[in-house]
Amino acid sequence: MSYFSNVPKIRYEGPGSDNPLAFHHYDPDKRVLGKRMEDHLRLASCYWHTFVWPGSDVFGAGTFARPWQQPGDPMARAREKTDAAFDFFSRLGTPFYTFHDTDVAPEGDGLADYVNNVAAMVDVLEKKQAETGIKLLWGTANLFSHPRYAAGAATNPQPEVFAYAATQVRHAMEATHRLGGANYVLWGGREGYDTLLNTDLKREREQLGRFFKMVIEHKHRIGFKGTILIEPKPQEPTKHQYDYDAATVYGFLKEFGLENEVKTNLEANHATLAGHSFHHEVATSISLGLFGSIDANRGDPQNGWDTDQFPNSVEELTLVTYEILKSGGFGTGGFNFDTKVRRQSSAPEDLFHGHIGAIDALALALERAARMIERDALADFKAKRYAGWDGEFGSTILQGGYTLASLADDALAHDFRPRHVSGGQELLENIVNRYIYG
Amino acid sequence: MSYFSNVPKIRYEGPGSDNPLAFHHYDPDKRVLGKRMEDHLRLASCYWHTFVWPGSDVFGAGTFARPWQQPGDPMARAREKTDAAFDFFSRLGTPFYTFHDTDVAPEGDGLADYVNNVAAMVDVLEKKQAETGIKLLWGTANLFSHPRYAAGAATNPQPEVFAYAATQVRHAMEATHRLGGANYVLWGGREGYDTLLNTDLKREREQLGRFFKMVIEHKHRIGFKGTILIEPKPQEPTKHQYDYDAATVYGFLKEFGLENEVKTNLEANHATLAGHSFHHEVATSISLGLFGSIDANRGDPQNGWDTDQFPNSVEELTLVTYEILKSGGFGTGGFNFDTKVRRQSSAPEDLFHGHIGAIDALALALERAARMIERDALADFKAKRYAGWDGEFGSTILQGGYTLASLADDALAHDFRPRHVSGGQELLENIVNRYIYG
Amino acid sequence: MSYFSNVPKIRYEGPGSDNPLAFHHYDPDKRVLGKRMEDHLRLASCYWHTFVWPGSDVFGAGTFARPWQQPGDPMARAREKTDAAFDFFSRLGTPFYTFHDTDVAPEGDGLADYVNNVAAMVDVLEKKQAETGIKLLWGTANLFSHPRYAAGAATNPQPEVFAYAATQVRHAMEATHRLGGANYVLWGGREGYDTLLNTDLKREREQLGRFFKMVIEHKHRIGFKGTILIEPKPQEPTKHQYDYDAATVYGFLKEFGLENEVKTNLEANHATLAGHSFHHEVATSISLGLFGSIDANRGDPQNGWDTDQFPNSVEELTLVTYEILKSGGFGTGGFNFDTKVRRQSSAPEDLFHGHIGAIDALALALERAARMIERDALADFKAKRYAGWDGEFGSTILQGGYTLASLADDALAHDFRPRHVSGGQELLENIVNRYIYG
Amino acid sequence: MSYFSNVPKIRYEGPGSDNPLAFHHYDPDKRVLGKRMEDHLRLASCYWHTFVWPGSDVFGAGTFARPWQQPGDPMARAREKTDAAFDFFSRLGTPFYTFHDTDVAPEGDGLADYVNNVAAMVDVLEKKQAETGIKLLWGTANLFSHPRYAAGAATNPQPEVFAYAATQVRHAMEATHRLGGANYVLWGGREGYDTLLNTDLKREREQLGRFFKMVIEHKHRIGFKGTILIEPKPQEPTKHQYDYDAATVYGFLKEFGLENEVKTNLEANHATLAGHSFHHEVATSISLGLFGSIDANRGDPQNGWDTDQFPNSVEELTLVTYEILKSGGFGTGGFNFDTKVRRQSSAPEDLFHGHIGAIDALALALERAARMIERDALADFKAKRYAGWDGEFGSTILQGGYTLASLADDALAHDFRPRHVSGGQELLENIVNRYIYG
Repeated sequence: MSYFSNVPKIRYEGPGSDNPLAFHHYDPDKRVLGKRMEDHLRLASCYWHTFVWPGSDVFGAGTFARPWQQPGDPMARAREKTDAAFDFFSRLGTPFYTFHDTDVAPEGDGLADYVNNVAAMVDVLEKKQAETGIKLLWGTANLFSHPRYAAGAATNPQPEVFAYAATQVRHAMEATHRLGGANYVLWGGREGYDTLLNTDLKREREQLGRFFKMVIEHKHRIGFKGTILIEPKPQEPTKHQYDYDAATVYGFLKEFGLENEVKTNLEANHATLAGHSFHHEVATSISLGLFGSIDANRGDPQNGWDTDQFPNSVEELTLVTYEILKSGGFGTGGFNFDTKVRRQSSAPEDLFHGHIGAIDALALALERAARMIERDALADFKAKRYAGWDGEFGSTILQGGYTLASLADDALAHDFRPRHVSGGQELLENIVNRYIYG
Repeated sequence: MSYFSNVPKIRYEGPGSDNPLAFHHYDPDKRVLGKRMEDHLRLASCYWHTFVWPGSDVFGAGTFARPWQQPGDPMARAREKTDAAFDFFSRLGTPFYTFHDTDVAPEGDGLADYVNNVAAMVDVLEKKQAETGIKLLWGTANLFSHPRYAAGAATNPQPEVFAYAATQVRHAMEATHRLGGANYVLWGGREGYDTLLNTDLKREREQLGRFFKMVIEHKHRIGFKGTILIEPKPQEPTKHQYDYDAATVYGFLKEFGLENEVKTNLEANHATLAGHSFHHEVATSISLGLFGSIDANRGDPQNGWDTDQFPNSVEELTLVTYEILKSGGFGTGGFNFDTKVRRQSSAPEDLFHGHIGAIDALALALERAARMIERDALADFKAKRYAGWDGEFGSTILQGGYTLASLADDALAHDFRPRHVSGGQELLENIVNRYIYG
Repeated sequence: MSYFSNVPKIRYEGPGSDNPLAFHHYDPDKRVLGKRMEDHLRLASCYWHTFVWPGSDVFGAGTFARPWQQPGDPMARAREKTDAAFDFFSRLGTPFYTFHDTDVAPEGDGLADYVNNVAAMVDVLEKKQAETGIKLLWGTANLFSHPRYAAGAATNPQPEVFAYAATQVRHAMEATHRLGGANYVLWGGREGYDTLLNTDLKREREQLGRFFKMVIEHKHRIGFKGTILIEPKPQEPTKHQYDYDAATVYGFLKEFGLENEVKTNLEANHATLAGHSFHHEVATSISLGLFGSIDANRGDPQNGWDTDQFPNSVEELTLVTYEILKSGGFGTGGFNFDTKVRRQSSAPEDLFHGHIGAIDALALALERAARMIERDALADFKAKRYAGWDGEFGSTILQGGYTLASLADDALAHDFRPRHVSGGQELLENIVNRYIYG
Repeated sequence: MSYFSNVPKIRYEGPGSDNPLAFHHYDPDKRVLGKRMEDHLRLASCYWHTFVWPGSDVFGAGTFARPWQQPGDPMARAREKTDAAFDFFSRLGTPFYTFHDTDVAPEGDGLADYVNNVAAMVDVLEKKQAETGIKLLWGTANLFSHPRYAAGAATNPQPEVFAYAATQVRHAMEATHRLGGANYVLWGGREGYDTLLNTDLKREREQLGRFFKMVIEHKHRIGFKGTILIEPKPQEPTKHQYDYDAATVYGFLKEFGLENEVKTNLEANHATLAGHSFHHEVATSISLGLFGSIDANRGDPQNGWDTDQFPNSVEELTLVTYEILKSGGFGTGGFNFDTKVRRQSSAPEDLFHGHIGAIDALALALERAARMIERDALADFKAKRYAGWDGEFGSTILQGGYTLASLADDALAHDFRPRHVSGGQELLENIVNRYIYG
């Protein structure tokens, strides 16, 4: 008897349906800009928040009491959890899933145990994937929960911790490879500092650069064709995390010559904690050639920690999806729900409500973004706005045809008196709203 | 009759003095770590907040009513302002000053006027410098106040605005060069965006890269030996500024191959608006080889805009000064007071109170930081903490002696079980406080 | 020839229209819940941002160059400004407007001048109102821009400043009364502190309490039947403003026995600067019986100052409008556009684009909120959730039927073991989105 | 063999000592302003962070591995924990301690168990107090960790949860009374909301008001003479907490007529999360007659959650202590260390380092604040600044001698032209620094 047996397979019933356990906008086969919705969005459910987290927070114990979280034999519980997870994925209909090594396999007592447990659980997952048709969007290794990682993994002051982390990443990558994962993610949850008083920034960055190089080399060695993703976050649990935001990550990758090997896995809530809009992080990554995948969630604008709520602002998601579509859409990436229900939302159905709302919001955003692309008023406006740079004078400047001195001479000779032109922000905001609500 | 005639030359009177118009800790000739305080701190007063700003804010008119801010012939007023400024610098005893082109010379009507005005005022400044012995820490160009720059200078959608800005920078750089300036600063006040809806990030970054390359080329062409500085700030007046913080600037410089030509001019208040501590921005810049100079001020931790208050936290300044001393101290840089008195502080004396308090705070910080260096408990702690990385195993990893696979094999073979070691944060915080208050 | 002559009267053309200078959703006569849209929304345009502000910010000069902002005879310019304002209001079709005394009348040289100027301009406004049918939503006095108010108005350390402010408020109130204003607003822009070091909080609160009492007494004396509104804001230009948020205002009003005489004028951007959602401030005010009116705008979630942008999030406005409708809708209040176009938006049309987008967003929100009311799933959910408090046990507790001891005895005797029930947050969020996008 | 046996009794060794396990500034018997340091500061260690918290955070498991946190019989472990706690308090020398009911006594299975466990542990604590001389600053009840409180305690939608909470508070209060506690604290950790969509603000406020009234009645009934304290916090774990800050708490108390029965327990980190300085919350509470006690800690200015770090800024603490001394010093309150070592600080000694640094910082602050009082330049400045309000004109206004109309007539008749006077902020900041560093 399944934990989710009260929940039917979630189906598309259209906007008129009153059934909360149905999609109202997400119709996987519906074609948008010539491609199926499902193939555009590449939706993934995550293991950790949905199956591992017990509903605890720093001020209180878990409220969920899922059966597989009860005390018991770890491997048996891991299998029960996998049954529940794939049952959930199947009922929900997300074509992909994502996991950390220790979400699916018990950490065990030492590395030998760890390796065995991962190997055993990869067999289980492989079978589940085959049975259900659900695919792996990405795997990753948890290098932040165990006390050994309290001072970081790759950036730990002890090289033995680096080696422990390397072992986990090797096996998590190989598991991802075997399971046909489309990407492998590195999140440096404790790669940062709690205080500068005990921290050598230069050393730690060197360690991190070396770690990434080893990961890239291993990827090629084993023939993994997926994308290596790095996930920016500014802080929490650390005071400061080295992968602060997309622009910081770009500098790091350039420092170590990795900018062609790694792309970003962007999370909405991480963007806002870093002082940026989600839209900004996506647009910045795209402009730097770094865009990879999305952890689709939202933060609380009034709370200063990672709340990982289900994304439900069609207004925000439309702009993000527009940028992604303009850049050619997802390659190996997708929208992964790195989201959790609120601690009060303890019913099994709540896991469905959260995902359904987010999926419908993305479907709505996709359709609106497609309209924006079809008749791209924003692109037209920009083309006119920057037209001068496509002309002879602008091109000559950009191609190095002037020195500062010669350009200044020119400006003086022609008595340039450029006048400000309206940036049209309100007009453009209205146009976007017409795409959304028109 | 000077505006400041009620204020005597500010002298060092020691901690016991009750005279608010005296230094209590800053004794320019006092030797700290073998060098004069004055030579360590390289203090500069700024022109803009102190002589140009009338005490206005977005909600109200100016409260200061300085004589040289009254209506009148612009060049005559510019000369009066220069008299007042050098009178102030001389009474205060800051060895350096800093300016924007339009702080010292009226913008005029068109570029020809501008060039003439700057040339005339450089003569005036040169004479003033010679008379007083006061030197130029850096010059810069104001590329943000005039309406033509509403949509940016180098990143403007109109190439003619780029050219106008280039003309200003050329003349401001040449003025700085002629006046013996130790550095030239670029602050991209409007190099950013108000909305992504009308902005092409990639284009604008290309424009900015081109502008920097032209500046560097011109610097070498005219034989200017000073340092080119870039000043990170996350936002305000723009929604987002491209020079967000030191790490972002590093990525930008790497993208255009400029990382060896440009250093950072870090401002405390910009650091905190970017979500970082001032200490962080200094330590990060140093670790990236980017550190140049400081705009010494402070923000209000509860207010989300640039308040540019006088720095007065000895606790914060001690850590910052410690990092700077550890990195070898200032080269061409210095502590520039990019600070303004509060709008209510309308008395002429208030300009002195602000600076005196900040200078004394820096002197206190310098002495405490010197103690920290002399018996460097933090360095000792770090050396022990990272000792493993100096050993054979750590060095081999860092030098590329392991692949991910061979390191994982090693870890497994040796059954590594590294255990967490205390990071000692509270102990180190206490040690710092003992340096400050011991 | 009008400044706005290129702009036609803005009319409702429906969602299908491509005309940016038309309403797509706001149809004044359309009935929603039995009342005309216009009568629900009570839209007002403001004088200050739209006609007084020149497009300047702390980093740069004005970009707008409106004709009536050019140098000239102040009273003549004030009349030109009034012509432009009522021309704008008429073309736009907002039924109400709002002003500060010094927006409409030159401050003059001293109080006698001030009183004369206000009197003269009230005549002008009265005539304009009669000609156009446009009504006054509220008037207020500017007690923050002049240097005399640098340290506050009612909370100024000088009683003469209090008296000056009292004079302005008296005349601004009487002008509002004569012009048939529906409300009178008090915004304490400088009623707060820049530093606690020079501030006596208790004294200043007493002064403010006295000021409010005098205002209330005067209201009754002159027979003004409108509502006195107080406008919470946490800070800016002050470090801390006494009217921080709705809950703080409630405490202040209770302290001086004014809670039945004053209501709140809530601004979205002030709410978010105070660390609250706009929805929170509205719901809190309603729950405290304080709700009065709205300054409809939005802030930038990433910028820490008051950006006063046009509201365009239908998602946010729907929740706010739902709360207002549930509480019975506006009494004397309305949605006032305390909004400004971006500094780059310098074309006359931009003023229309900003308002049109905001008005359409409010119209969309109104229709969606009405749907929420008609079939109120949120109210149903709450009724079930709190049902226990409507039962005998809950009622007895609330009515004082238990002491702590007797209730504890009871709980122990019955061995209460209450279990957590799902709060349904994700379900409810989905329901709201179905109202918006269904 | 004690867990802390490597740590000697902490003694005052003076500023010259290099011993990190000694006080350098805190000398309990030293007289400051005629009173012993110990009697001024009334220092308390807390149970929860120091003995209950295992070093976990939302991203990782506990790092501390304290012996009493290992699995075992709950009552036996509770006794071991008490042994460790009083051993720690005795070695450290804090004269007071603080606890939640469930910190000291296992929650048990149901209320009968709970009551028995609390009773048994009160016996243990009473004996420990007698043996060591350590006193109870305050007790409280944990109404936020158990899943039953997920939706609040007094503000829970289920009255049975209210009753369960009432039972805990009754017994925690009676325990506090029996143990001679100087205060009883109410912290509404989950008294707030996660979403407005399921929340009735008015109902929940009524429930909370009723709960407080019952608590006050019980206090008087049992003859408890201590102070009832309320602890403001803006959010976390809730999205919004009803006890947002001191000003909000004042409004709540006034609404229910409780303002003479309850005082504030202010926490530094809660103040900054609410957007205020710690200084602000203390000064505000004092000005409202609400000041009670302090949870002495600090937050991280760059992190948006409650970090509860040890306070170590003498600069900040001096201003806070100055306010407290000016208001007459603590009554029943004190400085309670609601602080935790960093998760990386896993050594037993780290618990001492954290407290020692904080205690020395408070001792330094006390001495500096005493100097500020002895020659109170701030008070002198304020007296001059507000002198007008003590004069006839000011007093007449405050006492109601003018109406708005008569005051305006007066101002007009006398042609008042008040001029702005400097607020002296920089001068005052320098004076404070001279007290600290002079």
